[in-house]
Amino acid sequence: MSKALPKRSENYSEWYNELVKRADLAENSAVRGCMVIKPYGYSIWEKMQRALDDMFKETGHENAYFPLFVPKSLFEAEEKNAEGFAKECAIVTHYRLKNDPNKPGKLMVDPDAKLEEELIVRPTSEAIIWNTYRNWIQSHRDLPLLINQWANVVRWEMRTRLFLRTAEFLWQEGHTAHSTEKEAIAETEQMLEVYATFAEEFMAVPVVRGRKTANERFAGAEETYCIEAMMQDGKALQAGTSHFLGQNFAKAFDVKFTNKENQLEHVWGTSWGVSTRLMGALIMAHSDDEGLILPPKLAPIQVVIVPIFKGEEQLAQISEVILPIVKELKKKGVSVKFDTSDKQSPGFKFAEYELKGVPVRLAIGARDLANGTVEIARRDTKVKATYQIDSVVETVTNLLEEIQANIYQKALNFRAENSHKVDSWDEFVKTLDEKAGFISAHWDGTPETEEKIKELTKATIRCIPLDAVEEEGKCILTGNPSGKRVVFARAY
Amino acid sequence: MSKALPKRSENYSEWYNELVKRADLAENSAVRGCMVIKPYGYSIWEKMQRALDDMFKETGHENAYFPLFVPKSLFEAEEKNAEGFAKECAIVTHYRLKNDPNKPGKLMVDPDAKLEEELIVRPTSEAIIWNTYRNWIQSHRDLPLLINQWANVVRWEMRTRLFLRTAEFLWQEGHTAHSTEKEAIAETEQMLEVYATFAEEFMAVPVVRGRKTANERFAGAEETYCIEAMMQDGKALQAGTSHFLGQNFAKAFDVKFTNKENQLEHVWGTSWGVSTRLMGALIMAHSDDEGLILPPKLAPIQVVIVPIFKGEEQLAQISEVILPIVKELKKKGVSVKFDTSDKQSPGFKFAEYELKGVPVRLAIGARDLANGTVEIARRDTKVKATYQIDSVVETVTNLLEEIQANIYQKALNFRAENSHKVDSWDEFVKTLDEKAGFISAHWDGTPETEEKIKELTKATIRCIPLDAVEEEGKCILTGNPSGKRVVFARAY
Repeated sequence: MSKALPKRSENYSEWYNELVKRADLAENSAVRGCMVIKPYGYSIWEKMQRALDDMFKETGHENAYFPLFVPKSLFEAEEKNAEGFAKECAIVTHYRLKNDPNKPGKLMVDPDAKLEEELIVRPTSEAIIWNTYRNWIQSHRDLPLLINQWANVVRWEMRTRLFLRTAEFLWQEGHTAHSTEKEAIAETEQMLEVYATFAEEFMAVPVVRGRKTANERFAGAEETYCIEAMMQDGKALQAGTSHFLGQNFAKAFDVKFTNKENQLEHVWGTSWGVSTRLMGALIMAHSDDEGLILPPKLAPIQVVIVPIFKGEEQLAQISEVILPIVKELKKKGVSVKFDTSDKQSPGFKFAEYELKGVPVRLAIGARDLANGTVEIARRDTKVKATYQIDSVVETVTNLLEEIQANIYQKALNFRAENSHKVDSWDEFVKTLDEKAGFISAHWDGTPETEEKIKELTKATIRCIPLDAVEEEGKCILTGNPSGKRVVFARAY
Repeated sequence: MSKALPKRSENYSEWYNELVKRADLAENSAVRGCMVIKPYGYSIWEKMQRALDDMFKETGHENAYFPLFVPKSLFEAEEKNAEGFAKECAIVTHYRLKNDPNKPGKLMVDPDAKLEEELIVRPTSEAIIWNTYRNWIQSHRDLPLLINQWANVVRWEMRTRLFLRTAEFLWQEGHTAHSTEKEAIAETEQMLEVYATFAEEFMAVPVVRGRKTANERFAGAEETYCIEAMMQDGKALQAGTSHFLGQNFAKAFDVKFTNKENQLEHVWGTSWGVSTRLMGALIMAHSDDEGLILPPKLAPIQVVIVPIFKGEEQLAQISEVILPIVKELKKKGVSVKFDTSDKQSPGFKFAEYELKGVPVRLAIGARDLANGTVEIARRDTKVKATYQIDSVVETVTNLLEEIQANIYQKALNFRAENSHKVDSWDEFVKTLDEKAGFISAHWDGTPETEEKIKELTKATIRCIPLDAVEEEGKCILTGNPSGKRVVFARAY
């Protein structure tokens, strides 16, 4: 067994970095800021994709695929959007290499193969998609257009961190077009709720649903909705966003439709996305100093069975009892691994599966066999108990549900303990430094105050919660009147 | 209804292009050579992905994800591979745009944001993956390493065609590492067989399994295996390739392992891929002048039900009979669409679903309802017949199997009719011009002869079939001795 992980309490950041690597989730690549997602990490992402994709399809969306590249002239068409992403774009300027005459065996960019127009590697696809929608939409009968794509995007971030912020990342981006403002807003809100449901029911991560302030809006959006999750260090992580685009992209790309009254109007748009960043949220929300803790609904291996044996004969005896259980669990849709390898000790395996976050572990040795029992350990609470073999299938399936619920409840309790209502500047600063977490406080609604607070404390307004209560209050910084509280936090 | 498709017999190429667009499969984008895959086309691709992915996992492979970009120094490390792809690479040279001081509102590449080392947009991922494998492989216990990725790749092709040849395309690429040559060859052959099985059982396209000649090998491979399919114009289409890489990439990227005898050895490699090109093969292999013909196993909608009604009341009566059938079909895993829209006439719908290749169509009107019958039409043969309503579920499920088998058999017969054994140069030239199709002929085994034949006739050696019989013969061009026949054809 490799050496222990750094402890969360000592170095949360180092703990995260090491855990991502040791649990075989991802690693840095030879390309600055780009990661390699390793098979175990990718299998969790696949489970996320499948669940989200089902939810998108249930809400009427279809998948499609649009080009990786955006010609510069299209990219700059929606000015705010272009401005927002211009500083972090990878740009293709040439389309051919040739042998370097000065360095045998080496290649160089062929200066004769310069593109007439540069191509931007998509940081997001509104431009290329809305340019396509112009030809797809003529009449109100073509609307709503409800499309999603699963794709890679590139944003040339200077400081990168596995899953949380990488130059290339994987995501899905929904892009919809509607005939009315009302319908587009309803779509924006619906997709936020899909994300929130996914975070809470699959990832077991409670989220605050809210709206971003104008400062934090997606470049080119009229309104950005978001879900914000709390990590174990009390910092916030934006886990998904859903944008109401108004008619901005329709105007920039001249996308019009004939309404029922036979008049020409610009289309209303939305876009929404979640990315491999969710992997970071999943890891940081639940895991402990021994390794990952995965919610059963997203665990690639839900149950591992470790036989404790000496020699083939003992293994054969254990297998005779275990194989029917494996079969029955699989029939119930439970993913099981029966690890019969004799290259590692049971103790090594226990630690390894703890590191990998397998929710339920069964262990069975000669004595258990004689007694007709099995030891079952759950990863979340580390509680172990002995069960009769004939109750194993029921116990395990119940336990998986219980663990899913317990992990969520634990995160919910943690968030409650680390959410504070604050009514003065001193209290705000003190709370931020001593307790971390989410701070619910009044703000005067101006971008200037928001900026100033960020400068002074590094805390940002995570969102204006959708369920914020109307109440009279005073801005913690300026004392100016405020109608509702917003959520402040330091954030990833 | 839009105007009829061009006829295959008159202009096969135009027929294909129009069909791809009219059936809503794909279209050209604003980016030279890059396509937009539309929702209907993408849903077929998703079905392909799911089936292939299951087959990869059943044969022990795991998915992962590697960076989109390859630093130039890594790209050029395996010289043959680099040379093979250098002329068609999109190259990222800068990472930032800035406002163009001379053109308000426009952007320009920021000359201060030039990358120290250029990044190649992956045309294939051997370089970046083998560079990663160096750190993953130390001992024989780390082998075999069996990894696949689903990704986009870019090859700057000058002449592009939807699905068949595009600058960006979607594919999967398997990359495996083994401790022995024998095991790597077995893997190469196994994956070829997976592709062949997929083509025949899901796409209903019979394929010739074979080896490429040295000329046609993947750049950097020791041996390239392929499957070749025949299109309805008699031309060949390479539908998938599986490469035995020997130790070429292991040597270029210094990937070594300690064997059981504790000696350091280079690893043996394979890579294999299929792409959205399969969509082109699927379309061209089966479809007719009325539109797509899709094999039921890959059809997004397997059964469409078109009610023929006047007014809500008639529709309600039909729905009462049809909805339980829809439910039962869905329970059996059949994807059904009950098209109750009253915006188009039944005739329009019939033509539209023919165009889209829906395998089975049910139609039911007031008279059918009175008689307790339904009209069922199959897309492949266009045969229509009337059935009792209570037999519909069984009839439809049987029909789907029958159609899948029939489409395959039809393609197999077509290939048999258009495959010719030829033993002289005159016969070869005459057959190529008069009959098209596959020609089985003797070749002296030299690249020079192969080149010459290509120059003279545009026919290439598609493959040396794995099941080629050993027989003495004479090369059709040079008369030199040959030990087995190879397959010649003009190709996509």
